Amino acid sequence: MRGVRSRQFVCAVFVVLSLVCAQAQTDPLPSWNDTSTKKAIVAFVEKVTKEGSSNFVPVDQRIATFDNDGTLWVEQPMYTQLAFTMDRVKQLAPKHPAWKTTQPFKGALEGDMKAVEATGEKGLVQLMAAIHAGMTTDQFQTIVTDWIATAKHPRFKRPYTHCVYQPMLELLAYLRANGFKTYIVSGGGIEFMRPWTERVYGVPPEQVVGSSIKTKYEMVDGKPVLMRLPEINFIDDNDGKPIGINQYIGSRPIAAFGNSDGDQQMLEWTAAGDGARFMLLVHHTDAEREYAYDRQSKFGKLDTALDEANAKGWTVVDMKNDWKVIFPPE
Amino acid sequence: MRGVRSRQFVCAVFVVLSLVCAQAQTDPLPSWNDTSTKKAIVAFVEKVTKEGSSNFVPVDQRIATFDNDGTLWVEQPMYTQLAFTMDRVKQLAPKHPAWKTTQPFKGALEGDMKAVEATGEKGLVQLMAAIHAGMTTDQFQTIVTDWIATAKHPRFKRPYTHCVYQPMLELLAYLRANGFKTYIVSGGGIEFMRPWTERVYGVPPEQVVGSSIKTKYEMVDGKPVLMRLPEINFIDDNDGKPIGINQYIGSRPIAAFGNSDGDQQMLEWTAAGDGARFMLLVHHTDAEREYAYDRQSKFGKLDTALDEANAKGWTVVDMKNDWKVIFPPE
Repeated sequence: MRGVRSRQFVCAVFVVLSLVCAQAQTDPLPSWNDTSTKKAIVAFVEKVTKEGSSNFVPVDQRIATFDNDGTLWVEQPMYTQLAFTMDRVKQLAPKHPAWKTTQPFKGALEGDMKAVEATGEKGLVQLMAAIHAGMTTDQFQTIVTDWIATAKHPRFKRPYTHCVYQPMLELLAYLRANGFKTYIVSGGGIEFMRPWTERVYGVPPEQVVGSSIKTKYEMVDGKPVLMRLPEINFIDDNDGKPIGINQYIGSRPIAAFGNSDGDQQMLEWTAAGDGARFMLLVHHTDAEREYAYDRQSKFGKLDTALDEANAKGWTVVDMKNDWKVIFPPE
Repeated sequence: MRGVRSRQFVCAVFVVLSLVCAQAQTDPLPSWNDTSTKKAIVAFVEKVTKEGSSNFVPVDQRIATFDNDGTLWVEQPMYTQLAFTMDRVKQLAPKHPAWKTTQPFKGALEGDMKAVEATGEKGLVQLMAAIHAGMTTDQFQTIVTDWIATAKHPRFKRPYTHCVYQPMLELLAYLRANGFKTYIVSGGGIEFMRPWTERVYGVPPEQVVGSSIKTKYEMVDGKPVLMRLPEINFIDDNDGKPIGINQYIGSRPIAAFGNSDGDQQMLEWTAAGDGARFMLLVHHTDAEREYAYDRQSKFGKLDTALDEANAKGWTVVDMKNDWKVIFPPE
């Protein structure tokens, strides 16, 4: 009898623990307010993961793509990669005395963004060439890793990798827990993101799609290296997003998450597939806790994509009302 | 007592079954003869998967890259994608009466490969443009899927997807069972491979790296499509292999498998990383069961890579002596 009782006791404990666990697991998105946005996300995930349902999607087709700047982390007052570029100009300036008197470097050194912008595309390519090219891929990885470990956001005074959106981190984890493969599809540099996306977002290097410059295979002291060249290889923005998705992933996403006009074609491409689909835009409406911007913004302009979202019923996050918190706790 | 005896019996059955299973599992590479080649493969896998060992490699870094033509499937008497191109010229000829009298199409229609070759790169680009471009990515996928389902190898009289090497299929599965992520890194067209690599090799579309042409995002009848353009995007061969690996995978492989000079840089790039490494070349030495070719071959030329393999101690498969069978049973 004693044995039976022990077993009953153990079973009872197990049942209680299961209930506790179930309770703890009922809300996979605790930083999202209980609004229609959150309900739409959960309804989609439950629909596509329910076996036997007409909306069921097999695991190997559960592909979700996320823009990065403004969707997963802050993109104001400028793209983080631009802040990196400005910082690197300052770090490298002692070796390049001519930069003190030559645009766009002079502007970068003086923090005069207007002067940098005045140099147009030619100036941006010069900056890109000086800061992003001329070293091996391994060297660039070290440069990015070192910078991102110490640089801080000017307003939030915390590392850029802590200026990521807590609700979106939960969404990434929630999708993965439901069999989704989560990809980043960003206009940002692929080699600027890969060194830290796994640690910060749980997205490994091979699931990061981004813009790139060309590389050249060379032997240096008998060892092969990939030298980064001052030449654009691929711009993963606007039309480039569906092109990049097709090129890198080779399958169409069933869910796509963005925040600007640069994501519009990715969402259209996702929407045009068969079966259940989910398209979401993050609308920055929270000047107090983060930023409020859309149609007129220099970074992350959201204009035609917002019109299309409204016309087609895509889900739009109202950051101020849908998110309980913006950033992870320090 | 009866209950205890039953339990003992069940346990005994379980032990016997475990032993049977263990027996069945002792040889993960049954189509490989017990030569030094097989021993080198097994020794490498055991070394990098043994926790606590100085050679241990964490799962997320267990990346293995495989060439396709001549490494995973037959590449003689011509690359399969070239056979596809010739077949498609014949299928489409009724719509293009001029092809009967114009090279390289005339040669393709008459099976006159010398005439096709005489047109050089210009002719090959014309063929590529006519057969691989001018349709959407979805349409091209359907064309490839239909062709590969019915086309047969001229000598072996079986579908091309059955002209894959059984020992290499076992190797792919063995590596995956040991936590490796297996990639294809081929000079062949990425969109020519992706429709069938998962079914045939267990390699999903996102783990296929290959050559590509450019695509254009367009709206057709209000639906977005990716149109295939007659313009090279990327050639994933020779230097292109490490470049493609860096671009698509973003991490360096610890094991690489090839069979020709086109794979040499991929193997060099793999060898140059830190820690345990494995580089293997398939040497086609079996004219009876498959083909024998190396330094003089038009397809899959193996010359400088063989010298480098010998000089650096890379593993070289002697197909005739290392492989018990070549193809899977029909």
